[in-house]
Amino acid sequence: MSRFISKRYKDITPYIPGEQPKDRLYIKLNANETSCEPAPGVRRVLESSRMRNLGRYTEPTALEMRRLAAALCGVRPEEVLAGNGSDEILGWIFQTFFMDASVCYPDITYGFYESLAVGLGIEHHEVPLKDDFTLDVEALCHEKSNIVIANPNAPTGHMVPVSDIERIVAADPNRIVVVDEAYIQFHNESCLPLIRKYDNLIVVHTMSKAYALAGAHIGFAYGCQDLIHDLDCVRGVMNPYNISDITMAVGCAALRDQAYLEAHVRDVEEAREYTTTELRELGFKVLDSRTNFIFLEHPYLSGEEYVRELRERGILVRRYPSMKRAENYVRITIGTLEEMQAVVAATRSILLCLAA
Amino acid sequence: MSRFISKRYKDITPYIPGEQPKDRLYIKLNANETSCEPAPGVRRVLESSRMRNLGRYTEPTALEMRRLAAALCGVRPEEVLAGNGSDEILGWIFQTFFMDASVCYPDITYGFYESLAVGLGIEHHEVPLKDDFTLDVEALCHEKSNIVIANPNAPTGHMVPVSDIERIVAADPNRIVVVDEAYIQFHNESCLPLIRKYDNLIVVHTMSKAYALAGAHIGFAYGCQDLIHDLDCVRGVMNPYNISDITMAVGCAALRDQAYLEAHVRDVEEAREYTTTELRELGFKVLDSRTNFIFLEHPYLSGEEYVRELRERGILVRRYPSMKRAENYVRITIGTLEEMQAVVAATRSILLCLAA
Repeated sequence: MSRFISKRYKDITPYIPGEQPKDRLYIKLNANETSCEPAPGVRRVLESSRMRNLGRYTEPTALEMRRLAAALCGVRPEEVLAGNGSDEILGWIFQTFFMDASVCYPDITYGFYESLAVGLGIEHHEVPLKDDFTLDVEALCHEKSNIVIANPNAPTGHMVPVSDIERIVAADPNRIVVVDEAYIQFHNESCLPLIRKYDNLIVVHTMSKAYALAGAHIGFAYGCQDLIHDLDCVRGVMNPYNISDITMAVGCAALRDQAYLEAHVRDVEEAREYTTTELRELGFKVLDSRTNFIFLEHPYLSGEEYVRELRERGILVRRYPSMKRAENYVRITIGTLEEMQAVVAATRSILLCLAA
Repeated sequence: MSRFISKRYKDITPYIPGEQPKDRLYIKLNANETSCEPAPGVRRVLESSRMRNLGRYTEPTALEMRRLAAALCGVRPEEVLAGNGSDEILGWIFQTFFMDASVCYPDITYGFYESLAVGLGIEHHEVPLKDDFTLDVEALCHEKSNIVIANPNAPTGHMVPVSDIERIVAADPNRIVVVDEAYIQFHNESCLPLIRKYDNLIVVHTMSKAYALAGAHIGFAYGCQDLIHDLDCVRGVMNPYNISDITMAVGCAALRDQAYLEAHVRDVEEAREYTTTELRELGFKVLDSRTNFIFLEHPYLSGEEYVRELRERGILVRRYPSMKRAENYVRITIGTLEEMQAVVAATRSILLCLAA
């Protein structure tokens, strides 16, 4: 750390990037990505004459992409903000609205919320999930801090109905509720229509999951015009041309092909149901998932051992040793059916070795 | 503005995007961009099989691109940070180092420094350029605040020698000097080697100008390992996967083709010399420029009138009415030789109308 760093960052630690080992070829199921290609329109636009014009700055408000995203959600472009991934969006939300306030989130959820709160020096606390790892809606209704909820939640995969989200939002209009719907496209009901009813609700989406565009890194915030205006001001201060023209072209191409999105989602869901059934037959407790991953534990095989043994068999998955109540659980991203057949076969062989 | 916005942003105003009129086809010389294509390798990588893997997150530290950028500058990857444009980089620098301090910059320079300082609520002031619009090196040597210098400066195009930068940096080791070298590739000497000698120097580069990649929006910060480590921590907090895989692929392809860069720079410089000579013959005072733009005024034609008349003739250029001492000046980006011939012809016709 240098002697110049601002006081507010004195406690931050360097970011430890996710594991991307290169020692061998792995089936990579540790980051909720996909090995599938994005929509064919993405390749077409990258090969188009538009890419001859990269000498020019893009339109700075990403209007083309915000219009498409807004139309798909039945809102106006003024109710949408675009960012380089939902992480950038979440960063702006925390900076814009939570700096003088406090924020809370479940104890078992996407770890980036905690990183952001700690990194920005924002007062924060956890609201524990219930014993079955479902959201404690009652507790959140009584919460006075700003709230961030991933719905469906990661890494549990659990989804609460929109009516529960609405109860939380309506319970106290003086704090903001951020609903991170990263996995909404996997046939889940979005609470997005509520942004017209509540001025304290922000919904966050990403194209990194169902759209197969993690490598393009595009996210959106939806909210009432005033909230989006505030976020856009901060965006304008921090990086007025945040979305590059390549990112915009790619995002638009993928948003335009909803049929491809639906086919990809169906494939993932089929592979998820296959994997869930097979692993349950092998004795795993697999939580019901409405996402592109499953969260599971085994009565005899520890999470640590399972991850290590899968890795030795060329399969990367993830666990959360820091989340004490879930430290025995493993999160497995749903890849292609072939990749999941390999997981099931590897798991069977691990259990056989254990029994021997 | 919503009722939720953090106190620190109470004074910010929404970002007003640069003028991009669509009412007709314009020769666009108002944003220091280029209508030239980037290096051929950029198109090749966008058409390559790498773009089939966009379902995957990229390597989060942008190591591939930082390695290339570092090698070109003779430093180590640990001394380089990559961002979505130098604007993102500057935003992190201001946040990381200037929040509890103050910052200054010339009165006539890149307007984004002021936007950032105001937006982040950082104490700031201007250090006037000298009467001939050159940097007041003496005044900056005595300055106790952190300093941001664009070198060459925009919109004046003026360059100070590295020895002057070193005097400013060395004059007080307890404040940071940021040298924004956005136009360094136009045959200017970089102060980058000084980062090994001074731990209070940060050099900022962009690929938006000479590399013809404004539409990809890539920037770099160079500094001693401790400064870069701090910036990387803040990057990790705010957006750990800030550089998308597309951005990284494009940036690497352009960095690899230095011959293309040099040819593009030569073309711009030729067109700049042509334009400067012609406009001086037409009575303009044209400041010497070491960049891809010129800054000029005319004794009889006001800046406001010149911009308006050029616009009516389909040519967009820029002026800075808020910079009082330079309000009569006009900044013209150097486009292709054909575009500059059109500027000279239009200017001649404007002056003829004026004389009539």
